[in-house]
Amino acid sequence: MIKVGIVGGTGYTGVELLRLLAHHPEVELRVITSRSEEGVAVADLYPNLRGHVDLKFTVPDAQALAACDLVFFATPHGVAHALADEVLAAGARVVDLSADFRLTDIATWESWYGQAHGAPHLVDQAAYGLPERYRSKVCDSKLVAVPGCFPTSIELGLLPLAEKGLLKDQRAIADCKTGVSGAGRGAKVGSLLCEASESLHAYGVSGHRHLPEIRQVLSDAAGSSVDVTFIPHLTPMIRGIHATLYCRSDLSQEELQQLYQQRYADEPFVDVMPAGSAPSTRSVKGSNVCRIAVHKLAYSDQVVILSAIDNLVKGASGQAVQNMNLMFGLEETCGLNHVALMP
Amino acid sequence: MIKVGIVGGTGYTGVELLRLLAHHPEVELRVITSRSEEGVAVADLYPNLRGHVDLKFTVPDAQALAACDLVFFATPHGVAHALADEVLAAGARVVDLSADFRLTDIATWESWYGQAHGAPHLVDQAAYGLPERYRSKVCDSKLVAVPGCFPTSIELGLLPLAEKGLLKDQRAIADCKTGVSGAGRGAKVGSLLCEASESLHAYGVSGHRHLPEIRQVLSDAAGSSVDVTFIPHLTPMIRGIHATLYCRSDLSQEELQQLYQQRYADEPFVDVMPAGSAPSTRSVKGSNVCRIAVHKLAYSDQVVILSAIDNLVKGASGQAVQNMNLMFGLEETCGLNHVALMP
Amino acid sequence: MIKVGIVGGTGYTGVELLRLLAHHPEVELRVITSRSEEGVAVADLYPNLRGHVDLKFTVPDAQALAACDLVFFATPHGVAHALADEVLAAGARVVDLSADFRLTDIATWESWYGQAHGAPHLVDQAAYGLPERYRSKVCDSKLVAVPGCFPTSIELGLLPLAEKGLLKDQRAIADCKTGVSGAGRGAKVGSLLCEASESLHAYGVSGHRHLPEIRQVLSDAAGSSVDVTFIPHLTPMIRGIHATLYCRSDLSQEELQQLYQQRYADEPFVDVMPAGSAPSTRSVKGSNVCRIAVHKLAYSDQVVILSAIDNLVKGASGQAVQNMNLMFGLEETCGLNHVALMP
Amino acid sequence: MIKVGIVGGTGYTGVELLRLLAHHPEVELRVITSRSEEGVAVADLYPNLRGHVDLKFTVPDAQALAACDLVFFATPHGVAHALADEVLAAGARVVDLSADFRLTDIATWESWYGQAHGAPHLVDQAAYGLPERYRSKVCDSKLVAVPGCFPTSIELGLLPLAEKGLLKDQRAIADCKTGVSGAGRGAKVGSLLCEASESLHAYGVSGHRHLPEIRQVLSDAAGSSVDVTFIPHLTPMIRGIHATLYCRSDLSQEELQQLYQQRYADEPFVDVMPAGSAPSTRSVKGSNVCRIAVHKLAYSDQVVILSAIDNLVKGASGQAVQNMNLMFGLEETCGLNHVALMP
Repeated sequence: MIKVGIVGGTGYTGVELLRLLAHHPEVELRVITSRSEEGVAVADLYPNLRGHVDLKFTVPDAQALAACDLVFFATPHGVAHALADEVLAAGARVVDLSADFRLTDIATWESWYGQAHGAPHLVDQAAYGLPERYRSKVCDSKLVAVPGCFPTSIELGLLPLAEKGLLKDQRAIADCKTGVSGAGRGAKVGSLLCEASESLHAYGVSGHRHLPEIRQVLSDAAGSSVDVTFIPHLTPMIRGIHATLYCRSDLSQEELQQLYQQRYADEPFVDVMPAGSAPSTRSVKGSNVCRIAVHKLAYSDQVVILSAIDNLVKGASGQAVQNMNLMFGLEETCGLNHVALMP
Repeated sequence: MIKVGIVGGTGYTGVELLRLLAHHPEVELRVITSRSEEGVAVADLYPNLRGHVDLKFTVPDAQALAACDLVFFATPHGVAHALADEVLAAGARVVDLSADFRLTDIATWESWYGQAHGAPHLVDQAAYGLPERYRSKVCDSKLVAVPGCFPTSIELGLLPLAEKGLLKDQRAIADCKTGVSGAGRGAKVGSLLCEASESLHAYGVSGHRHLPEIRQVLSDAAGSSVDVTFIPHLTPMIRGIHATLYCRSDLSQEELQQLYQQRYADEPFVDVMPAGSAPSTRSVKGSNVCRIAVHKLAYSDQVVILSAIDNLVKGASGQAVQNMNLMFGLEETCGLNHVALMP
Repeated sequence: MIKVGIVGGTGYTGVELLRLLAHHPEVELRVITSRSEEGVAVADLYPNLRGHVDLKFTVPDAQALAACDLVFFATPHGVAHALADEVLAAGARVVDLSADFRLTDIATWESWYGQAHGAPHLVDQAAYGLPERYRSKVCDSKLVAVPGCFPTSIELGLLPLAEKGLLKDQRAIADCKTGVSGAGRGAKVGSLLCEASESLHAYGVSGHRHLPEIRQVLSDAAGSSVDVTFIPHLTPMIRGIHATLYCRSDLSQEELQQLYQQRYADEPFVDVMPAGSAPSTRSVKGSNVCRIAVHKLAYSDQVVILSAIDNLVKGASGQAVQNMNLMFGLEETCGLNHVALMP
Repeated sequence: MIKVGIVGGTGYTGVELLRLLAHHPEVELRVITSRSEEGVAVADLYPNLRGHVDLKFTVPDAQALAACDLVFFATPHGVAHALADEVLAAGARVVDLSADFRLTDIATWESWYGQAHGAPHLVDQAAYGLPERYRSKVCDSKLVAVPGCFPTSIELGLLPLAEKGLLKDQRAIADCKTGVSGAGRGAKVGSLLCEASESLHAYGVSGHRHLPEIRQVLSDAAGSSVDVTFIPHLTPMIRGIHATLYCRSDLSQEELQQLYQQRYADEPFVDVMPAGSAPSTRSVKGSNVCRIAVHKLAYSDQVVILSAIDNLVKGASGQAVQNMNLMFGLEETCGLNHVALMP
């Protein structure tokens, strides 16, 4: 059994980790930390866990965490740096759900996050936890940076083209729609039901922190610089991200369909749908799957790729568990075989 | 033109007042106050008001308010007491949307609100602003306390029975369902879309602050003490209150229907629906109407009354304007003739 | 492995059965029928099942069904009668999610459902599938009638009182709030998002078909006739039922709390929450649990019981699987240990 | 007073017309037709109209309609052709909310709508009812074709660029998000709350009927052929369309901002927001305004225009009334000065 600790367990990625780990056959939950909720039973904060988890929140303690085999960090950016260093030094492994170790270029990280990087020496050791591209690195790594929710949906949607060099000389467009849980459990006016339901708007138009991460992965896949216009929209639902990706190509519908199906043929969590499909976010609600459909428009070179994930599962906690499975040599799908909740 | 000021205009009752007053033919908006948003244009905080209202928020200033004919207080309880006193002394009239002047018994107020009453000498002058019962008092008053949202729905639903003495010797039940806007625009975790949508729960089971107000009005109508069990529920919608009221009576369906129709025959904002109806909250969304249906169940003495209002209109700002109209001798429906938005 | 067939698999209880059975360790799905979708892959109609279920819908065929060990009927009322008879005669067992075998009194069934009962000789053999009261009967039965969604929430909420004889001489009130999935997947105007969201209304005030079932079970538990006023409300969410139950008792809060905790101490799917709690429907979304809180109001004999279930799980398909587990001697919780999806 | 008739008044554009016309100071509602609801009081089908409209639905009757000054057609495409011809011949004017007279090229219409055009001789007389571009034509016309909801949001968003010739040599992208009311009040499974809420998906990717209309208007504005990639998405809200428009330009943010502000300076229903803004659909809910923000991304030639309307108001019935006002020489804003409902 893998002894697991969770740092920062009160947010939505924290409770989702608990849902996935509570019945994971190879995991024993040992520690879950929260400064604000110290001493509170997890199941009192999250009654859905009554009968499933009987831990209490404790103040983060390096020793208790170091006694774990693996520590998940579900903390805001900038928080994981120092503690992750300590935990790694003690021999535990780390899966970080924040942005702290996603960017390989430290100056880029510091410029987007407006602070000094707290553990620059660890950046080289970190694997970017998108198994569909970096599986072998993840398997060998003691520190994995789980991709952002938007980047996951966009990167999986564009990787087949990027890897073939087909995104050169163009600027792809990623028009993304997210549920409100992406904004976290913080008490912000903009996330109130009365503000966010029955409405829809764009945000971060002048630049969103997920952009450098998307550029990094697609450029790495392409072997040369790839840029993307990325516009996120807040939509009135709890879970789900839908990326609508626009680029140009001379490939036909059949060629595109074949390219995507072959690329993801062996991927347990990427579902390339039949030509003509349009994935709905609810078809992945609560599951770790990314569903993709690729469309070539008639009489033009316009390609439109539709990509849907649950932002809290494949876009965060599910992908974190998928990485854990790889790091510990388990079946990649272990504990992750949930059918999406529909309706 | 009535010169109008609003104290505490950043909440949902504030913006709803602005919606209703922006095109009220007899009103000139002069002042709107907010400490936190001082200097901000109202239309920047509430873009729906762009092109309709060009005021800026100012810090509350007794002199500026005293220069108005009428000041609405859309403040949390306990805030209106001192300032209202000053404004009244200067000759302006006051319509208070908080609970500060609703209860005639000061000890009761202090016990439910956990603080000393800040203006006990004004309580006697205050009219309870439910025009359907206290119209003449409202017309003569310089200080009106707008009823709470739940009390409005419950009192209008039970008044015909209470006034006939038919609620004696029984404890009526008021099972109420409210939209989330009733919790205000404060950044509370429980009001987040991710917490409040796709869910439903009761709250305040052990006692809700609206209870003494309901008892006071129904007992006054009955001429003797009337008690009610009142359980509110938070439901996943923005606007609306639905009260389901249970009591017992020997009257037949026809007699009940006639009682209600006669009682409200001349009321512009109470719609007694035909026998067999079930009002939906959306049928009053954005309008000042309370729709009521009364049902006698077969083979029993069980009476079920259904009552629906928009909590921000008839339950707050619309009723406030209705009171203003009466206080200034205008047509009661002036500026309040909105058709509910449907769908 | 239990060979399972499903009749009428295109509705919401059908797809929910598939979600629960797809990974049930003791079940092999063999047949799923639908006249309207014959030949269509289940995963084409319900993309959440892509990769989990690869059956196609077939026209109901008595022989194919008779080759199963167990057939679930997820059909409208009146449909199961004849086919269930055939299937039972062939030696398979039947779990019926419709109302067809819930009522022991055939005349009552015929009067509420407006048609002749199609298999009156089977009624005596049918067990009412509420294991918390009829477990041993279910274990011994070849035909189980799964309770309705509202009855499940109400009966579990009132059973401890009914069994103690405490509902005599009073008429309890059950004010119920349901999500829209209770209305099924039929294309009805009233179930459209534009009609049912952002609104709330009562329905079936003059009498709902679930009423005789509630009366039957509570009267059986009480050993004498028990009547209930039952008013359902349609609320703007997909899943969930919340029953707010009102009755009177001289028992104290402590006595009530103890009564409920003792009654359900050994029940894996009933969670009696601590005194002062208010269960939310989202705390059971996707799970088979019924969460209950019992409240005694101060200065009165008023008891308020709050009961929350997922109408598609404990209120239908989950309870159906729970019954299957009992009928086949499996662990009662087998395949039903889902953590509710939150947020 | 303008005597008004409405053909096909049971859908969402019909009830929205009634909301807007019920208190329009220059309108007298005379006739409202519906074959399916003949004899039913409008207020029985739409209880929000109780006390505002006391008409009953009647079967369409050319004579009764011809006695009106203006007839609105709120019918599915293909229905208005013959009856509009009759009504026009009798001297009444027509505002058609369907697609029947929007396209100037009859072959294009027939190819997209899959049927023969029923009144080709009227096409030349029809004005395309986007007053912001075709105001003088509308003023002079007896037959106005109200633009589609998506086209309104896209055309207003791109007109300033198209008219300057800046959309040549590129294919703009229109990623649109609509509320479910755009699908109408028909009982379709895909529009059920349980299907459409808590989810989001693209549709019509291979080609949507609004595309030729968009091409026609933008090409006319540009003076040469303009093409657009248009992908609509169904989002979980009742009302609202948000168009996110992508194109390329060498103009700076300041130049673009100035271009848009100047273009719409005199338009009462187009609100160009300050640089850096992001309009939300709720800021126009129930109002006839289109709010637009224009963004130039840094370090690229990427322009992103955000455009928000209420699909039932500026996207349908409100724009229809705006056209009526112009046709009858009224103030263009008459009866259309609603503040959006927020929250």
